Amino acid sequence: MLSVAEAQARILADLVPTGPELVPLADSWGRIVAADIVARLDNPPADVSSMDGYAVRAADCAPGGVLSLVGESPAGHPFAGQVGPGETVRIYTGSLVPDGADAILIQENAQEDKGAVTVTVPPGSGQYIRRRGQDFAQGKVVVPAGRALTARDIGLAAAANHAWVPVRRRPVVVILSTGDEIALPGEPIAPGGIANSNTPMLAALVRACGGVPVMLPSARDTASDIARLAQGIETADLLLTAGGASVGRYDLVQQGLEQIGLSVDFWKIAMRPGKPLMHGRIGRVPVLGLPGNPVAALVCGLVFALPAIRTLAGHTAPHLPEDMAILGGDLPENDRRADYLRATLSRAPDGGLIATAFSRQDSAMLHTLASSDALIMRPPHAPSARAGTPCRIIRLDTLSI
Amino acid sequence: MLSVAEAQARILADLVPTGPELVPLADSWGRIVAADIVARLDNPPADVSSMDGYAVRAADCAPGGVLSLVGESPAGHPFAGQVGPGETVRIYTGSLVPDGADAILIQENAQEDKGAVTVTVPPGSGQYIRRRGQDFAQGKVVVPAGRALTARDIGLAAAANHAWVPVRRRPVVVILSTGDEIALPGEPIAPGGIANSNTPMLAALVRACGGVPVMLPSARDTASDIARLAQGIETADLLLTAGGASVGRYDLVQQGLEQIGLSVDFWKIAMRPGKPLMHGRIGRVPVLGLPGNPVAALVCGLVFALPAIRTLAGHTAPHLPEDMAILGGDLPENDRRADYLRATLSRAPDGGLIATAFSRQDSAMLHTLASSDALIMRPPHAPSARAGTPCRIIRLDTLSI
Repeated sequence: MLSVAEAQARILADLVPTGPELVPLADSWGRIVAADIVARLDNPPADVSSMDGYAVRAADCAPGGVLSLVGESPAGHPFAGQVGPGETVRIYTGSLVPDGADAILIQENAQEDKGAVTVTVPPGSGQYIRRRGQDFAQGKVVVPAGRALTARDIGLAAAANHAWVPVRRRPVVVILSTGDEIALPGEPIAPGGIANSNTPMLAALVRACGGVPVMLPSARDTASDIARLAQGIETADLLLTAGGASVGRYDLVQQGLEQIGLSVDFWKIAMRPGKPLMHGRIGRVPVLGLPGNPVAALVCGLVFALPAIRTLAGHTAPHLPEDMAILGGDLPENDRRADYLRATLSRAPDGGLIATAFSRQDSAMLHTLASSDALIMRPPHAPSARAGTPCRIIRLDTLSI
Repeated sequence: MLSVAEAQARILADLVPTGPELVPLADSWGRIVAADIVARLDNPPADVSSMDGYAVRAADCAPGGVLSLVGESPAGHPFAGQVGPGETVRIYTGSLVPDGADAILIQENAQEDKGAVTVTVPPGSGQYIRRRGQDFAQGKVVVPAGRALTARDIGLAAAANHAWVPVRRRPVVVILSTGDEIALPGEPIAPGGIANSNTPMLAALVRACGGVPVMLPSARDTASDIARLAQGIETADLLLTAGGASVGRYDLVQQGLEQIGLSVDFWKIAMRPGKPLMHGRIGRVPVLGLPGNPVAALVCGLVFALPAIRTLAGHTAPHLPEDMAILGGDLPENDRRADYLRATLSRAPDGGLIATAFSRQDSAMLHTLASSDALIMRPPHAPSARAGTPCRIIRLDTLSI
């Protein structure tokens, strides 16, 4: 059995990010930048005031000195003239500093009366002036390739005068769940059958990773049905299957996909929930075979499918971030499989996170999974651990997955 | 000046969540549940096996005992008969336990040969059986109203046999940026002018909060232009303005919107970046006037607009979650305004977060804002704080905003 890290590395090793496309800046939220976004102008575009007040020559400003008000420089309407000796111009936050002025006398330190401005506290030279390009200069990379665009990045790209941004195309991820017992919700369910939760759940995971899910009809438990449904996979970026991978299923997915050209890389990993995880390729299309158990499918989806889809989407940090917490209860020694325990989070008096594993870790408990705030990660052969000791976690409460 | 908490409370006090709509389950990711989702069936639907093996009567299983294999119970094809004394049925993970059987003999503890199964290690009564309804029973609330649907919730709602889910309608948020100096990226920018970063940035924030942004053209610095552009606001759920709120702008937004019926609640808060924040109403439509400075607009957007939009969207926990970190550098005493310092995050050797404020907190630095991983929150009059002491933060690195 492969380790989790080895399996992740082999899955990601030969994935190629999708090609670029241009999208309107206003539609780019969450998309992955395909090429560095470079500033097309200086920001600020010239020296500007950082306060409301008066543009002055610092050398003219003795306490009690009086300056002659010769104009105004509101935002968008720069003062066209020059601030000469003994002169000043009314100015506002963000307004251009007129030629001749070298400091801002803030309005709290001045008194204006009938065209005369009396200095109460003089400014130092250069004070309250934001220099041209202080935020960023033309030519600077403001948003680097590989970043998922946040609202702040979009503001920055806008300030850098980009109306369109190059992003990676959303990877198309085909989802195929198998099992004679499953039917999508709303479809007739046979006696003893269950609703297919994996297809819509994995479709949401694909969306959360920036991909476009394509949901196939549920496959029957025959190799030929699986092969038939997976036809046309060559236009996809990834095939995700769920089920038909454990011993009891006779490795049906593998048999079915071999009929359309699957070559298998590996199919067992040392983790819980999980173990049956198949990795392979049909032509250029990578294939990930997840376990059919929905809890195992979701956890393996987080650990393997998420970084794969994010890599395809051009993300340069594709793995889930880890956090630290304090154990809320004792944990027994772990066996040879990496364990991902469903857990709740609470806050210690010092504000730190406390992770408490659910007492029942049955991998069929979807309700427990949905109620979990985190997964506690335990490496193979981890020794027993007492409440109060640190542990590594994956936070689910901030994930939307 | 109002405190941040007081202002938040007054803004949220009279917001009413949008009405419900039904969406296909597969399109519901991230939406806010409008009414409890109740299980329509038991899961598992009957007693099922949690392992691959043999359904047996535990009382028949002495070590070395031999059972007669009378059939098979693959998933989706329950065994129709009864397991009689001395009999067993082949069973797989998730398969229905046939009548008569009361335990699962796992395959690791059995030897099968020509229709005979020899017990090596007998199971206890009830062992390896998942009971009907153990995950959830029909009638149970599986996803409560007010929750933002995760992939896991969608899996759970699917398992509970819901093809459609009731969610809150996305709130429509109209965005109006003002300023003679601004032009949307790609439009002609006047000399000394800058690109309008607030409109696309706030539109992305609205999306991140589950709303639908409507971007108005940038308003000129006249009350009449602002009034003209804000016409038709009565069909929106919220009006967000940016700019035209500080002294230098003569409170233009307020003057303009008063022409179409604005009543003002308050317009100044004790925070930095921020201070000029206007709250009011035009008829039934709440109005939030954000500062024009993009950094201040974004921080006030996080602190005030985000909980407002999430409340409109039906979210029951609308505020941003707070985290704890250790200060990476000394901080001076704070004045009477709550401060939100832009900061980077790193990891201490014990895995805890270290928050280090940028030395330059100039609120015109969009590039610094976009590079920030967190905001360090400092209450009014906070005493000076040394590196290594705890601080409250809002994490931005996990936010997409």
